[in-house]
Order: sequence, then C-alpha cells, then structure tokens
Amino acid sequence: MSKKAIKVATIGGGSGYTPELVQGFLDRYDDMPVKELWLVDVPAGEEKLAIIGAMAKRMVARAHRPLKIITTLDRRAALKDADFVTTQFRVGQLPARVNDENIPLKYGLVGQETNGAGELMMALRSIPVLLAIVKEMTELCPDAWLINFANPAGMMAEAVTHYTGWKKVIGLCNGPDNIQRDIVNALQTTREHVDTAFIGLNHLVFAKHIYLDGVDVTRHVIDLVTTEHQRVDNPGVGNWDRDFLQSLGVVPISYLQYYWKTKQVVAEEARAASHEGSRAVVAQRLEHQLFDLYRDPQLNTVPPELKKRGGSGYSQASCNLIYGLYADRRDIQTVNVPNNGACLDLAPDAVMELNCVITSHGPMPLTVGHLPVAAAGIVREMKAFEQVGCEAAVTGDYATALKALTINPLVHSDVDARPLLNELLLANEAYLPQFNFAALRANGTL
Amino acid sequence: MSKKAIKVATIGGGSGYTPELVQGFLDRYDDMPVKELWLVDVPAGEEKLAIIGAMAKRMVARAHRPLKIITTLDRRAALKDADFVTTQFRVGQLPARVNDENIPLKYGLVGQETNGAGELMMALRSIPVLLAIVKEMTELCPDAWLINFANPAGMMAEAVTHYTGWKKVIGLCNGPDNIQRDIVNALQTTREHVDTAFIGLNHLVFAKHIYLDGVDVTRHVIDLVTTEHQRVDNPGVGNWDRDFLQSLGVVPISYLQYYWKTKQVVAEEARAASHEGSRAVVAQRLEHQLFDLYRDPQLNTVPPELKKRGGSGYSQASCNLIYGLYADRRDIQTVNVPNNGACLDLAPDAVMELNCVITSHGPMPLTVGHLPVAAAGIVREMKAFEQVGCEAAVTGDYATALKALTINPLVHSDVDARPLLNELLLANEAYLPQFNFAALRANGTL
Amino acid sequence: MSKKAIKVATIGGGSGYTPELVQGFLDRYDDMPVKELWLVDVPAGEEKLAIIGAMAKRMVARAHRPLKIITTLDRRAALKDADFVTTQFRVGQLPARVNDENIPLKYGLVGQETNGAGELMMALRSIPVLLAIVKEMTELCPDAWLINFANPAGMMAEAVTHYTGWKKVIGLCNGPDNIQRDIVNALQTTREHVDTAFIGLNHLVFAKHIYLDGVDVTRHVIDLVTTEHQRVDNPGVGNWDRDFLQSLGVVPISYLQYYWKTKQVVAEEARAASHEGSRAVVAQRLEHQLFDLYRDPQLNTVPPELKKRGGSGYSQASCNLIYGLYADRRDIQTVNVPNNGACLDLAPDAVMELNCVITSHGPMPLTVGHLPVAAAGIVREMKAFEQVGCEAAVTGDYATALKALTINPLVHSDVDARPLLNELLLANEAYLPQFNFAALRANGTL
Amino acid sequence: MSKKAIKVATIGGGSGYTPELVQGFLDRYDDMPVKELWLVDVPAGEEKLAIIGAMAKRMVARAHRPLKIITTLDRRAALKDADFVTTQFRVGQLPARVNDENIPLKYGLVGQETNGAGELMMALRSIPVLLAIVKEMTELCPDAWLINFANPAGMMAEAVTHYTGWKKVIGLCNGPDNIQRDIVNALQTTREHVDTAFIGLNHLVFAKHIYLDGVDVTRHVIDLVTTEHQRVDNPGVGNWDRDFLQSLGVVPISYLQYYWKTKQVVAEEARAASHEGSRAVVAQRLEHQLFDLYRDPQLNTVPPELKKRGGSGYSQASCNLIYGLYADRRDIQTVNVPNNGACLDLAPDAVMELNCVITSHGPMPLTVGHLPVAAAGIVREMKAFEQVGCEAAVTGDYATALKALTINPLVHSDVDARPLLNELLLANEAYLPQFNFAALRANGTL
Repeated sequence: MSKKAIKVATIGGGSGYTPELVQGFLDRYDDMPVKELWLVDVPAGEEKLAIIGAMAKRMVARAHRPLKIITTLDRRAALKDADFVTTQFRVGQLPARVNDENIPLKYGLVGQETNGAGELMMALRSIPVLLAIVKEMTELCPDAWLINFANPAGMMAEAVTHYTGWKKVIGLCNGPDNIQRDIVNALQTTREHVDTAFIGLNHLVFAKHIYLDGVDVTRHVIDLVTTEHQRVDNPGVGNWDRDFLQSLGVVPISYLQYYWKTKQVVAEEARAASHEGSRAVVAQRLEHQLFDLYRDPQLNTVPPELKKRGGSGYSQASCNLIYGLYADRRDIQTVNVPNNGACLDLAPDAVMELNCVITSHGPMPLTVGHLPVAAAGIVREMKAFEQVGCEAAVTGDYATALKALTINPLVHSDVDARPLLNELLLANEAYLPQFNFAALRANGTL
Repeated sequence: MSKKAIKVATIGGGSGYTPELVQGFLDRYDDMPVKELWLVDVPAGEEKLAIIGAMAKRMVARAHRPLKIITTLDRRAALKDADFVTTQFRVGQLPARVNDENIPLKYGLVGQETNGAGELMMALRSIPVLLAIVKEMTELCPDAWLINFANPAGMMAEAVTHYTGWKKVIGLCNGPDNIQRDIVNALQTTREHVDTAFIGLNHLVFAKHIYLDGVDVTRHVIDLVTTEHQRVDNPGVGNWDRDFLQSLGVVPISYLQYYWKTKQVVAEEARAASHEGSRAVVAQRLEHQLFDLYRDPQLNTVPPELKKRGGSGYSQASCNLIYGLYADRRDIQTVNVPNNGACLDLAPDAVMELNCVITSHGPMPLTVGHLPVAAAGIVREMKAFEQVGCEAAVTGDYATALKALTINPLVHSDVDARPLLNELLLANEAYLPQFNFAALRANGTL
Repeated sequence: MSKKAIKVATIGGGSGYTPELVQGFLDRYDDMPVKELWLVDVPAGEEKLAIIGAMAKRMVARAHRPLKIITTLDRRAALKDADFVTTQFRVGQLPARVNDENIPLKYGLVGQETNGAGELMMALRSIPVLLAIVKEMTELCPDAWLINFANPAGMMAEAVTHYTGWKKVIGLCNGPDNIQRDIVNALQTTREHVDTAFIGLNHLVFAKHIYLDGVDVTRHVIDLVTTEHQRVDNPGVGNWDRDFLQSLGVVPISYLQYYWKTKQVVAEEARAASHEGSRAVVAQRLEHQLFDLYRDPQLNTVPPELKKRGGSGYSQASCNLIYGLYADRRDIQTVNVPNNGACLDLAPDAVMELNCVITSHGPMPLTVGHLPVAAAGIVREMKAFEQVGCEAAVTGDYATALKALTINPLVHSDVDARPLLNELLLANEAYLPQFNFAALRANGTL
Repeated sequence: MSKKAIKVATIGGGSGYTPELVQGFLDRYDDMPVKELWLVDVPAGEEKLAIIGAMAKRMVARAHRPLKIITTLDRRAALKDADFVTTQFRVGQLPARVNDENIPLKYGLVGQETNGAGELMMALRSIPVLLAIVKEMTELCPDAWLINFANPAGMMAEAVTHYTGWKKVIGLCNGPDNIQRDIVNALQTTREHVDTAFIGLNHLVFAKHIYLDGVDVTRHVIDLVTTEHQRVDNPGVGNWDRDFLQSLGVVPISYLQYYWKTKQVVAEEARAASHEGSRAVVAQRLEHQLFDLYRDPQLNTVPPELKKRGGSGYSQASCNLIYGLYADRRDIQTVNVPNNGACLDLAPDAVMELNCVITSHGPMPLTVGHLPVAAAGIVREMKAFEQVGCEAAVTGDYATALKALTINPLVHSDVDARPLLNELLLANEAYLPQFNFAALRANGTL
C-alpha cells in the first residue's frame, strides 16, 4: 500500500536543532514519507532561518529523498493543510533568556528558563504566540496534530488545553529520555530491557516504577544513582542524598534540584554568572559556534557539536511521536497531555507528563494511580503555579502575574515578587502585548 | 430536666492557660455542669501543676460552684470515665521550643514552633504521646471526646485519624477566631453580623467567603486589611500586598507569611534572636511572670497579663466546642476534622480546619467546594508534608524524617536537611523514644 | 430594626395548595413581612385562580395584616422585582397526570407522576416552562431566589442548574418531612428530639442516620417501622421487609417501593384503576371538592379537607425555607441543590436532596460521606436517568427521550419504550413545543 | 536465550473446554514452553477429568511437544510452584445451573447463569472456592498469576481484590472478543484494522470508541449493527433499536438485553423452557455429546462440535493473556482488573472489564474517561449489586443475600426476593457451607 504523503510545518524553524529533525525525517522516509517540511520563523530570525534552510537542503540532497524544504516568514502559508505542526520557537530568543536568568539572581532567587521567575516570563511571552498558532490551525489545518517542544512545554500544553477547544495537542520534552538513559547506564544494560513508568509534570517528572526484564528494580536503581562515583554523572536524574531518595521511593528528574536543593542551586548560579556566564550566555556562545559550522557549504550531516547544546534528543522524540501517530504504532511514549484519570493526584483535565500508548487517534494515558505523597505535594503545588501562570499569560493581568510569582516555591514572597516582576516586565515589554503597560505606568504600578 | 454531670481531664494541666479554661467552665456551669476537672501533668511539670491547681481552687471558691479540681501525675486515673479529654501539653516544654526556633535559624531557615523544621520536631515529640493517650482512652473512657489543643494541632489530629481507630477527636486552634477578630475590626461591626467560611489546614487556613449581614464582602475586606494604616495591626490576617491578596481572592491566616514572605520572616527572626530573643525566649519570660502572679494566694481571677502570652482565646474556643457537643447546639464552629468531601481539593479523609455544625454526635463539615487554585497549591503541598511528618513521628524512621524536612517549603534542600535534622535529633534525644539513636550512631548517620 | 418588605411571586398560584402558603405568610408576618403576594396562572387556570385569589383575600382580611394579594395572568409583571419566586405549576394540569398514570399501565408498567414514564413526561412538559421563567427572572428580578415545588422537583432543579447560569434555585419537597413524621411516631417522641441525616435524590431519599437526643438509633427505628402493626401506617417510609431494611441500614422514602416492590406496585395500580380510579382521578375528585369549599364566600381559613389532597406540608416547608433565607437563620433544612461534595457517591455538581444550613447567602450542604453501597446503586442509576431526561426535555430530541425511557428501571426495554413513548408524546403534543412533531410524522417515527 | 519453562495449573480441568487450552499451549510452545499442565478437579468430576486427561495426552502426542499432562484431585499438588493458575470450575456443575435458570423463571424473573438471581447464586457457590484457592496459592505459589475464567468472572475478580491481599489476579471473558467479531463482520474488514476501546463490567461491557484504521467509526458501526438483516446475527452485540443505540452512542455487549429488553427475555426464556429446555439443559445435552467424542481413543484434535458449546474462544483469550504476561508483550487486551482511574465513573479500586497493556508486571489499564451517562447508570448500579453479592458470598449472611437480590434490577422487589432466595438457598444447600442453614431453619427463616 502506498503511504500517505505528509506535510510538516515547524514554527521556529531557524533553530539550531532543526538539522536533527531533518535527519530524523530522512532516516524514516521509507516508513513515513514527509514530502514537505516548512520551516517558519520571524523576521528577527531570518538570517538563521536562511542558514538552516540551506543546511537542510544539503542534507536532503545527500540523502536522495524527495523531501522538499521550504523556508518562509509566512506562517499561514506553512500551516495551510499541514498534517503535523511542530513548535520550537523561543520568543525573544536567547537575549530574553539572559534576562530570565540574571534578573532573578539579583534578588537571590533561582534564575532559570523553565523554573521560577524565568519560567513565568517565558510563559508570558510564549503562550499568546502558541494560542495564535492554534487559532490559525483551526482555520488552515483543522485535522493537524500540534506537537509543542517550545518551553515551558508543560504550561504551553496546559494553556492550549484550557484556553482553546483544540484537542490534538501534545507537549514533548526529552527529559524522560534523559532519565531513562541514566537508569540504563546505572543498570549497565540496554534500553529495551528497561520499562519505566513516568508520571509528573514537564520538568517535574518522576520514574515511579522501573522494571528490568519485568522485575521491579526501582530501589536498586536508587541505590545505584546515589553511589558516590555514579551520582556525579546523572544529567537526567541529578545528584541526591541516598536516604532521602530511598524514602521518596521514586526517581526524580534532575530539575527537581531547583526545588530540593534550592540554596545550593542559587549559589552555583551566582558563581557561574560571575565566571563563565549564565547558562544562556554559554548557550549563545555554543549557538554562534554551531551556526558558524552550519554556514559551511560543505556540511551536509548533523555535526557532533550539536549534542553540547543541551536539547539534543528532541529530534528523536519528535520523530518517534509523529511516526507513532502516523502509523498507529501503539507503542508507549512519554508525553504531555491531560491525564484523564491516569494519575489520581491531579484532576483528570490537568496536563501531565506520563506514559501513553500512541495511536493514530492520539495518545492514550496508562494509569499509574497515586504518586508517593511527598512527590505528589510538589506536583500539586506546581500545577497550581502553572495554572495561575497560564491565566496571567492569557489575560495579561498584573495582579495575577504577581500572584503566580508569589506562590512559586522559588520566590515565596510577596515583598520580593513586586520589584522582581516589575523589572522583568519592563525588560520584556516588547514581547508582552497582552499587558497594558500604559495603564500600569499611569496608575503608578510600573 | 437535670443535666448530666461532666468529668473533664486536661492533659498538660500545669499550663499557664488552665485558669482561662477553669473560668470558662465556671461561667457556663449552669448550662453545662463540669463537676470534676482533672489536671494532669508530668513529673517535670509538677511544681507548675501545683501552682495552677491551687489557683484553680481559689477561682472555684470565689465562684461558689461545685466544680472539683484534682491535680495528678496519674494520667490513667484522670482518664478513667472522663467525658471530655483536652490536651494542651508541650513535650520538652519551652526549652525544646527554644531549640526548634534557634537551630533552624543557624541554617538561615525559618525557626518557628508550628512551621518548618520546628513543626516537624514538635510533631516528632508530641504525636507518640497523643497516640499513647488515645490508647489509654480506648480502655478507660471509650465514649469520651478528645479535644486537642496541643500543637502542631493539624498534624496531631491527622495522626490520630490515620494511625488509630479513634473517631472522636477534634483539633482546635484559636487561629480562625483571630482572623475573625481582624475582619470584624476592619468592618467596624460586631461579630454576630459576620459569617466567615474558613477552609484550609491548621495554621494554614483561609477565609474563603466573608458575609456581612448575608452580603459577600470578601473583596471589600481585602481592601480594608491591606490599607496602609490597617495592615500594621492585623495579628490574625497579617500584612499583605493588596494586589496579591485581591488576586488570591481569599484572606489568609497570618501564618502564611512563613510561606509567602519567607525571606523577610527569616530576617526578622534573626534580628529578634540577637536582640530581645526568639519568641520562645520571650514566652519563657512571660511565663515566669505569669506564674509569679499565680503564686499569689490572693489571686482568684484570670490576670490580664495572660493575654500577652499569645494563646489567649483557646479557653473560649474550647468551652464553646465542649458545650456544643454536650448540648447538641448545632451552631457553626471552625475545627480540625476529616473534611469528608467538604473541600474538593483534598481527599475526604484528610483532616482540615473548616466550619462544622457541632452536634452531640460530632462536628459535621459544611461543604465549601474548591479553594482558589493558588491557595489550594500550598494547602495540598503542606498536607503532603503533614502526612510524611506524621509517618516519621509514628515510625521513628530517620529517612522519612529527612524526607519530611527536605520537602518542607521552608527547607527545600536535601543538602541542608541532613545536618539540620541531625542537630535537631540530638537536641531532642530525650523526647524521641521512637528513634533508634544507638543504631543511627552505629551506622554513622549520627 | 425595621424589616425589609418582601415581594413573592407564585407561579401556578391557582393551585388548591395556595391557601396554606397564604396562611404561612400570615402566621410569620411579624418576623417576615411579605407585603405582596402575586399569584400567577395560565389562561386555562383563570377560573381557579380567581377562586383562590378571593379566598386568599378573605384570609388576609381575617388576619388583619397588610399583605396584598394580586392575581394575574401576566407573569412578567409578577416577576418584576420579586424577592422570592415559588413555582407550583402543573403543565396540563390533572388531565395530563391521568395520561401519565394510565398509559404506562397499559404496558404493564408503573404509571406514576414522578416515577418511570410519568416522571419523564412531566419533566418534558415542565422543564421548558421553568427555564423560561428563569430567563425572565434574569431580566426582571436577578437577585431573587427561585424555590421550586413543581414536580418532578429533582429533575427541575437539575435542569436549572445544568442548562442555565442561575445559581439561586432550590428544589423543595415535603417527602423528608413525611419520613421524619413516621420516625417521630415510631419513636413515640417529638420532633425536636430527633435529628435525621437525609441524603439522596428527590423522591429517592434516605435517612442515613437518625439520632434521638444525640444517640444513633437508626437500627432501632428500622425495627420499629418494620413491625407488623407499625408498617401498615408509614406513609413516609413505606412498608418493608425487616431483614432487607436492616441490611440496607438506612430508611428509604416510601417512593422506593416503585423500585423495590415494582411488581406489587403495578398490580395495585391496575386494581385501583379498575375500581376507584388512578391516583390522578382521585385527586381530581378531591380537587373539585376543595374548590367547592373555596368558593364559599364565608370561608376564610384553610379547610381541614386540604390535608387529604396529599401535598399538604408544602406550605410549611416553603415558609420555613423562605424565612431561613430571609433571616439568615442557619438552621438545618432538607432541600435539593448541587451537593458540592457532601455525598461522595455523585459528582459535586449533581443536585441532591440533602441537609443544608440555610443562610441568607443560600443553603450550605452538610457532608454525609458515602451512602451504603446498595442505596448508592439506585441513586446513581436514577441520577443518570434524570440527566438523560433533562437533556430530552431541553433538546426535544426523540432518540434521547427513547433512551431515557429505555434505561429507566421501571421500563428497561427498548422494545416497550418505543410504542409507549409514541403514545405518550401524542397524548402530550399540546405541551411539548420543543419536539418537532411534523418531522417525526414525516419520517415515520410517529 | 533459552526460555523459562512454565507450569500451569488448571482448576476445573475436567471441563470440556480444556482441549482448546491444550491446543493453545501446543501452538505456542516454541515461544512459551508450558512444560507441565496440571488438570485439577473435584471427586464428582473425576470421570470427566479422566476422559479429558486422556484426550489431552493424545493431543500432546500428536504435536510432539514435551508438555506433560497431569490429572489430579489434589489441588495443593497442582498449585505447588505453579507459574499460572487458571480457573474454569463450575461448582455444582450444570445441574446447579439448571436451578439458576428455572427457579427465577417460576417467579416471572430472568433465569440466567450470570445475570439476576442466577448470577447471585453462582457467586455464592463459587467465590468461597476461589478465595480458598487464593489462600493456598499464598502458601504454595506466591508469585503465580491467577487467571480466572470461572463465572461470574466480574464478581470473582472483585471478590479476590477486596477480600484478599492477592494482587496478581486477572478476570477473563471472551465477551469483548465476540463484540469485536460482530464489529469486524459489520465493517467487512479484518481484525487488525479495528481498534476498540472497551469499558464496563464483565458481561456489562461497552465498546466506547471503534476506530477503523485510526478513524472513529462508532456511529457508523451502530448503523450497521442495527440494520434489519444485520441485527439478527449479532451474537456479541445483540439486536437493538437503532434510535436508542445511536443516542446511547456506544455499542453494548448482548448481555445488556437482560436489562434493556427484560420483558422480552423472560418471555423467550419461558418459551424455551417449555420447548427445547433452558440453556443449561441444552448445554448438558451438548456436553454429553462432546464427551462422547472425547472418549474416542482415535480423537487427538479439538472437534468442531466444541464451538457450539458457547464458551469457545476462551482458550485463545487465555493463551494470549498468559503469553502477554510471560513475554512482556505490551499488547492491548481486554481483561478484568481494578480500573485504577481509567474510568472516571467508578472508584479506582473497582474491578472493571477494560483495555490494558499487558506487561510482565501485569495489566496496565488505559484511560477511557467517562462512559456516556446512560451507560454509566447501569454500570454503577450493577457494580453496587456485585459488591453486595460478594459480601453475601463471603459472609454467608442471609439478609445481605436478600438485599443483593432485592436491589438487582432483574428482581427489584423485596416481596419476591424472599421466597425466591429461600427456594434457591435450599436447592443449593450442598454448595453453600458459609450459610448457617441450621440457624436459618431454627429461627423460621427457612
């Protein structure tokens, strides 16, 4: 049977990660013929988009597959009749991230793109853009799947779910893959022997059960990932006190360090900021190097330097998901969708990151019951933050944003929240059209 | 109809608050004839018990009511056939509280008797004692009501509910009364015009709706309690950013400052510790003065100095509750019991502080639906802490205690939690028989 | 303080029950000054309305209270600025009820106005009228309380709750009062000694706990109401097998006989129909007699004959409720409102008949936890029927009505449901404007 | 890698279905080496067991596989170290079923082995036997999976789940397969193109969504299975009114006819009983014929006559399940386990029949959200019956059995329930050791 040809539109197509995505589509071309890949970006990203587009075309030429690469600033043209829309945009690009990291740090608070004040600002910038895309999709490609990688991926999926009628949205992150990799390494085995039940929120997910050839080895894995020599190299899981983790009984993603090592994280961030620069500064440097490589008209394969950039693996996760949806594969993948009763600790309509069977009619969550109470506590609190933050992003209401910041466990102070919010709003004014800056200035708030 | 005579046993009877309780029983004697009041204490409190017992007898003599005061160290004798058992003990007395306040402060963390590390330690010391009392009650007074004032009152009620089969337990606190007082003052009205729907946890409760003569004035009250001149004097509500509170939409108890002004609270505690002393030190000083007054053989009424001590109002709350249960009053009071579906944000079996109709067959919670999501977040997280802390108190398991401390939002660091826990355990060794210190020393943990 | 004057509009004011309501308002006039009582009816009821209006005016004259009686066919004028709107209308009046009873009986099925096929038809006729009233209230008296007595009272409250945004609606029935009366009689005591926890649906309610002076006597009451001589006279509770009821553990309303004595009920209905006539026929006869009395220009008090009519007690329930709302009485009454978590067996937004504290801001349900599983089963199934029936009433969709009838446990056959529905629809065509009879005839359905 | 050898114990091994099971194990031997199959039966079934054992050995010999067949009356020997225990016993064998069918029919009620009074009696006979097996498994094969086919399969799984601590139990039925077959036939396609989301209870299950190559065709299937010529041959789905089924929106198992065509079913059962005999009588006749075939020492393959017996397909379902568990297949199968949140209409611990991913650590339910409200109503009511019936089976309490019968929608009368129960109990006295017949006779109940 001949396979249905596919059109993919990638919003934020000028990203340095795009070549991985191109490679993924090429590798799977025979099973899943992506005939058109539209790379969309904004005017500010036009130069990068051109570089990436040229690079992508060289990769296609090398692979001898009839995959057409189109670069454009016309989002509507890209969305028209698309089968899959993937989003990997970053509003305000890396300079905005620099602010997200550095401004909170001035207040002695965690500065990070998907946690704390930085997460809120990224959500305020990105959610309106995503909702605008959904609105256009309703008109231009009403049967397409929206696969969102853009951060904060959990809040983005939550916002689409609760503020639009769009059902075919899936949030995706490579976090669970990274945990899985640490587990596989710790067990000194290979991936196909390990079955892990993930549950939680994006960047706040836990491996609740780990099975090695069908046997529950969760406690053993906790021992392994907390041994002295091992724990220095758990990029996915992080580095934890063994007694604490054994009592917790589940394996957290390393992002939990922002909540359960807060003081230490702030100290390390402060140190880095005054030496090699914050993570955003480092990322900018890496990105410049990467684009220098991409400019090379001889380069037609993904360069190994991409791995250093941090988000590597997105491409594989994305291609696996698209393939699962396309081919009704019914394999199990970890994605962000409404949990629908799978986790008894959050409402059924709350978006969670969890294992689903991927079918052509969408992901079907596998039930996991309760999280251990200690993990459920932070998950429930952070879902509250996500929901309040989404409301602030959609409404542009100052007080709601202030509330989001105050209740965030990395801020937890209405006294600190106000000047911090004001400084962040002013630094992001260009990207926050939903906020009424004139009125905020007029009434003395700003 | 002649009224049934009542026997009350008060555990921790040597407390300086006892005279208020005696006064309450005397004032209501005609409606509710408390014939015997047994004041029980431990050997370390024998001297205080004697002073209080003598004072109580003078009060009775003055009131000309046949209320018999019995002081004893024999708890079983006191419990035998009691109708009501009230608990107001403090294991380790005020010196233990000094540790609860000062040790966390050394780590830059909140030091407070019912929040953070202090709350955990108080729970570890107190819960085993309360469970022992319940065990004796099962044998000696199986139909009695247990009314617990001893802190941390929320965790204490949670522990009895989940670790014993005892149903007739009610946790009580004067916190809601203090909020109510601030609201009444702000509205410049009197108590009977105001109807407030409380919901949350002990020391983490919110006024969800405030009605003045049947009209919802919640937003107006928030305006009032956040005006400049008003908010300096809201001991019950605390002092909040107006935009934040209007967006929150409910009125918190002042204890929320530990969570939503954390940095500022720690700074103030550090300042106080190096000047007038921590709250425990001040309380010790006040207690000494109070007992000096009580020693006076002429004193036979509650001295005005008692109000300064901070817990005033307990007596009224306690007498109201006992009277409601005794007389099937069906009035509405705010107590700590399993919410039974009243709040949709926590499981039905979770103990909450909420409005109940008080009947002779117990408190019946009034439904309140959902908390605003921002308030629900912290309530859910803190209930998780309470449950983990209760488990640590019952099992004496080191790792569980470490987990409780790590997930507490006032600690939030496994790196800090370990040395802090170790120091606190060692300081409390005499009061923690459930922990196996020998084994913890042997394996190098301590 | 002078009390706020009240305007009440009573829809279906020409009912024979109205004099009781008038008497209730007169009796309470000093506490609750109802200054205007507007009695509204439809043209078909104009003669009865005139008789009732004249009777009411004579009662007012006798009582010397400034309560103005206005009779009108102009519903909008009556609703304008009303404080309370009570509904006691019966669309199609008693002749429609005759059909509701007799047509199902032809199929060997229960024929009854608030159960089975009769309940569905009454809902199909009445719900659109009630929703129209709510729409007018939104415009004309947006702060009024709507107190609905019109049957089927449970479905009516469910429909307003789920198909309008109107919050201030309370369904009311004298069923719980009748159960209470049987219990009080069985216990040979008086009402004030008995406290009963009601929970269930309208006409499907249970006394879950019965307390006599605070002691749970539920099992004892079950023994009493199932003794031979007692059970012949339990109009409220009904006549039950003792072993069954003891195992059930709760006391049902007598309407449960339609579900748990189905065959016997049908046999008795068939017997009655061929002798004294169905209940509707008897009721018509009683009503004629009653209106003959009301026509007497000397009559100015409620005649004792009203009690025979069956709905007696509505007036007292209604006046108690209005008074509770008006005066913020905070007493406990049994009404039909969304349960809000009070009962763990149905969703929080499902309307249930249950105990509430009545305040000036509305009824606040008291939590009751779970029903016994055997009672929960029928309650859950019947709520499903109610919801499907409401949908049929609102949409006028034939297949939905067919579904409602098929799943009703008194029908339980798609084979029987179709001809039965067709016959009922045709008999009620005049009262079902929401159904498209022309189309149903055109496509051969009818 | 060499595969782990498997021991299977089959309780009720003398069943005529056993040859199918043997064939299934032989067919899959290379993937799943069942080395020992222990066939256990009771003394009354000894002759049949011998016939089946000999037949099985001939099948093994023909297949040339080292599968050892052991027949025994010693259940403990069979359970010792078993990997899988399958149960297909029928307490009282077909004669008991004759009673289950004929006695209710005398009262004008449905007589059927897994619905109504028959279901209750089968549960009362079978549940204690299953719980005894579980007790022995705890001792003899604590890691084995228990796969129960014995009816009533839903109540059996519910009983093990709620009255033992045994977790590794799965209820299995070929009902979903039969629905699936009707759907595939109606769509004129093959099985692999169809994906059906099943949810409900055993013998009360619904196809909520049907996907054909990923497209939801549920409404289309409903049209197909309700066309005139089609619906006469839907053994799995049954024969339904099209409007009703379209409005229901899901495809029921044919057993729903007992609830939604009750009167018609009873009429047909009465007709059959007075002609060809009840289903049990027919089944007995078929069984005799089948065993006559099995006695033939030449027969060494499953005879085509087995298909007529009605339960065919069990073997395939069973082998698929065992293979899925053994090989960690992660395919989707429909089984009976606690739903764990998969269906929002029942408590998470309620056993349901639903789609699960089958892993080596057990079935993981896939979330399905809500059933349509009309289907949820009957499911919830029948789960209540199941739970009450399980309690009666475990306790042997007469009143609980009476309650179960009264609330069953196929009885719905306490007046009928008592004589019916009494007659059924007396007819089953030999199989109900948990009931105290002496006491019931002494107090006049029987």
